[in-house]
Amino acid sequence: MTEPASFDPSCPLPIPEYPQILLAHGGGGRLMHDLLETVIFPAFSNPVLDPRHDSAILDLGGVRVAFTTDGYVVRPLFFPGGDIGSLAVNGTVNDLAMAGARPRYLSAALIIEEGFAMETLARVVGSMRMAAETAGVLLATGDTKVVDRGKGDGIYIATAGLGIIEHSLTIAPQSVQPGDAILLSGDIGRHGMAIMAVREGLAFESAIESDCAPLFGLVQTLLDAGTAVHCLRDCTRGGLASALIEIAETARLELRIREQAVPVREDVQGACEILGFDPLYVANEGRCVCFVPAAEADRALSILRGHPLGTDACRIGEVMEGRPGQLLMQSRIGTWRIVDRLSGEQLPRIC
Amino acid sequence: MTEPASFDPSCPLPIPEYPQILLAHGGGGRLMHDLLETVIFPAFSNPVLDPRHDSAILDLGGVRVAFTTDGYVVRPLFFPGGDIGSLAVNGTVNDLAMAGARPRYLSAALIIEEGFAMETLARVVGSMRMAAETAGVLLATGDTKVVDRGKGDGIYIATAGLGIIEHSLTIAPQSVQPGDAILLSGDIGRHGMAIMAVREGLAFESAIESDCAPLFGLVQTLLDAGTAVHCLRDCTRGGLASALIEIAETARLELRIREQAVPVREDVQGACEILGFDPLYVANEGRCVCFVPAAEADRALSILRGHPLGTDACRIGEVMEGRPGQLLMQSRIGTWRIVDRLSGEQLPRIC
Repeated sequence: MTEPASFDPSCPLPIPEYPQILLAHGGGGRLMHDLLETVIFPAFSNPVLDPRHDSAILDLGGVRVAFTTDGYVVRPLFFPGGDIGSLAVNGTVNDLAMAGARPRYLSAALIIEEGFAMETLARVVGSMRMAAETAGVLLATGDTKVVDRGKGDGIYIATAGLGIIEHSLTIAPQSVQPGDAILLSGDIGRHGMAIMAVREGLAFESAIESDCAPLFGLVQTLLDAGTAVHCLRDCTRGGLASALIEIAETARLELRIREQAVPVREDVQGACEILGFDPLYVANEGRCVCFVPAAEADRALSILRGHPLGTDACRIGEVMEGRPGQLLMQSRIGTWRIVDRLSGEQLPRIC
Repeated sequence: MTEPASFDPSCPLPIPEYPQILLAHGGGGRLMHDLLETVIFPAFSNPVLDPRHDSAILDLGGVRVAFTTDGYVVRPLFFPGGDIGSLAVNGTVNDLAMAGARPRYLSAALIIEEGFAMETLARVVGSMRMAAETAGVLLATGDTKVVDRGKGDGIYIATAGLGIIEHSLTIAPQSVQPGDAILLSGDIGRHGMAIMAVREGLAFESAIESDCAPLFGLVQTLLDAGTAVHCLRDCTRGGLASALIEIAETARLELRIREQAVPVREDVQGACEILGFDPLYVANEGRCVCFVPAAEADRALSILRGHPLGTDACRIGEVMEGRPGQLLMQSRIGTWRIVDRLSGEQLPRIC
């Protein structure tokens, strides 16, 4: 195995300061990271928010509860494999699942544009209902606001989720250990490419469908088998690469993955090449990485593969002590490179 | 006392069906009610949502938890007495307080328009932080999305809140009893008129400031004194009238109030007259009604008046068995009338 080349971590890139919000500030890359680090986190710093996991973990009268929120502004509202309604449910229940919490309740705040078709609203709401039933959560509370024509984009949905942690593990970036194996639950890039194909009017032989799905069932098979899961993260905005970089930074460890081990479907790879995207950064809505002790990796992998959402699960890399906060990837020809955050915007309005 | 005139409840108004969303569907009046009853509630019907209280009450492993959400789309973003940030915190903690729950945690999903000034974002976020500190809640989890220039309106914020119910009362419309006294925590109409004065460019001798404030402290004084609180409701979108009509309908009881007993500040009354608004329907963000047994009304009133947010509290009416679902008001000259939901839009984008 070729060793990664050395580099100088004391030489950060100059980070420009922007006086205005850019689309890229919502894209899951470097600008979003900067926005959070310079404006959002400093304002709200507290022991619950600071661990920066997908969900906050709360002690409510002795019960361990996971709490999370996401806004959904995807464009177009309907795409192969899902719509803003199913996305708003699955995205939030997945953030709970990534804390190892069983999703129980959702809230939904709808911000609707004047002139939006009532029939379309009924479709979106029906889709939320079906997704909630599939994920086993109840829509407990909601709100509806209407904004002037031209001031929304059909509909935006913000959901918040509550889940219960029924085990004693601490599933979080802070639990990742050197030596852990990195498992990926399936092929990547489908959600982002499904959206982009619609937006760009691309017609492929077969439509690329979003992988949008609720992941707690998959997580539960690992937990039920007593797997010592250290960390879980779904590979949404910013894709697999951004998810792993965030974990590397929070855990202050080095992550290494092998490009060849990361499954990308042929049609997705083709669409990425046509549109100039790197599948590593393309959003998924039903894929996650799992960090488990190396000794448990083979067993965990076969458990994942036994679940319908994990049939293509694979081991893509491991955790090292080497360079804290870095993600390194070995290419198909054996060379290593540092995988960094995208600085700009690859895919706006993807979720 | 003049008795209310008789009427025929079996003759409902014809309700038009709209193929598209109108601004009035978000206004807290009849159209919003119709939207919820015909599209939203049927889709999500479940035992947690169906009580239609300001918060859902959940049993999380034996702990009684209140859970609520609201989207905030107020225009302008800054107004005398508050801004979208303080509103997004206080509005949601108040929905928890109205279930008698101590607000503990908030989530915040920000939907920001491309081109929004970073400095303004920092002000909004700072205001959320201060309001959260005042209300004693932690911002536990958040999300940031960016939408294209022209597709937002600066910033929309959706917050969800979690609170703990530390008493054994069931504070909900279903607990309202015939004979209950209706208390109001202070003067009405200030939030809506503060916003409208800015929008319309009206200059009054002294600026009308929003009453935007967190209400749990006020509620707590009642609970600490052992008051048998039956129901609480903040008088937000749709104002005092809409809040009382909702309770009358859910409790299937008749509510009676006296116009003369409802305090409206002179400048607010003047602004309402200039703009053609009825203060009964104007939004408040720091006012609530309390339903308590008649025997406890005087004591509850003096408790409310002892709190800075309740100095002008007053007894405005009582609950009757008569006409389920109706709100009746005695005018200053002694005649009675049915107070109905506004069918159209009095104040769009008020919260």
